[in-house]
Amino acid sequence: MPASPDFLPAPASAARPDCELCREPGGTLVFQSAQWRVIPAADADFPAFYRVVWRAHVSEWSELALAEQAALMGAVTAVERVLRDSLAPAKINLASLGNVVPHLHWHVVARFDWDSRFPAPIWAAPVRAVDPPAVARLGVALEELDARVARAVAALAPAA
Amino acid sequence: MPASPDFLPAPASAARPDCELCREPGGTLVFQSAQWRVIPAADADFPAFYRVVWRAHVSEWSELALAEQAALMGAVTAVERVLRDSLAPAKINLASLGNVVPHLHWHVVARFDWDSRFPAPIWAAPVRAVDPPAVARLGVALEELDARVARAVAALAPAA
Repeated sequence: MPASPDFLPAPASAARPDCELCREPGGTLVFQSAQWRVIPAADADFPAFYRVVWRAHVSEWSELALAEQAALMGAVTAVERVLRDSLAPAKINLASLGNVVPHLHWHVVARFDWDSRFPAPIWAAPVRAVDPPAVARLGVALEELDARVARAVAALAPAA
Repeated sequence: MPASPDFLPAPASAARPDCELCREPGGTLVFQSAQWRVIPAADADFPAFYRVVWRAHVSEWSELALAEQAALMGAVTAVERVLRDSLAPAKINLASLGNVVPHLHWHVVARFDWDSRFPAPIWAAPVRAVDPPAVARLGVALEELDARVARAVAALAPAA
């Protein structure tokens, strides 16, 4: 993966001073375009978990124009495809919640029948201990997965 | 809301015999088009909760062609807008999980700061008792909400 560029905060005209996803990347930048960025969620239970964050401050999906929705879901779809092609997960989970940080972002999570919550949602209580740990069971190093995600989403839009 | 039409199961060429969302509507039909249907989740904790189900059997979002994704998200967006306009929720939550029933469907849920899990995801443990019950706090009867959802999505595609 190429060296991370400097994080671009939300444009001043579309930023909220009290919003952490306007001010901060929210994680290690995998890739950022003018409209969105991709960061790993860095969740030890779900290591194949990325977030696609809309750069401008918007709370709800339906506030985006159609072309913006298409651009955002293009990135979500590209991340999903990398996870499917690289990891053959039991299922992909997609979610846009934002109850705690109401700045539009999508969760893209690869789920496995051995993971700590499967088949429950990742937010439910754990149903099993996972040993060896999840990261050791993916079969692909996280650095390599990040690089594949970066290449896939870089094909969609110029880096910003 | 007009009388429900007969449920259209998944087309035979795209159905899985063991999949309940191929065979059954999964809830009371609010509206169905040739490609998708909308059903209420009928969850007492989250009464303003609809599912938008893709009619053909597809497991993952990224299996859909771009135009199919746009059609499906058009319905999701329309449901979201009705919930926002009718209920002024604290947040809309969107999710496509399918770990238990891997037939593509979106959850569209209106969340409120008084609901049983807020701000946690709806799949987390309850954090408070809700009394009077959630359905009595929406300010709109569910029949009326269903009718508004039906009208909004009917504007997107012919009924099937």
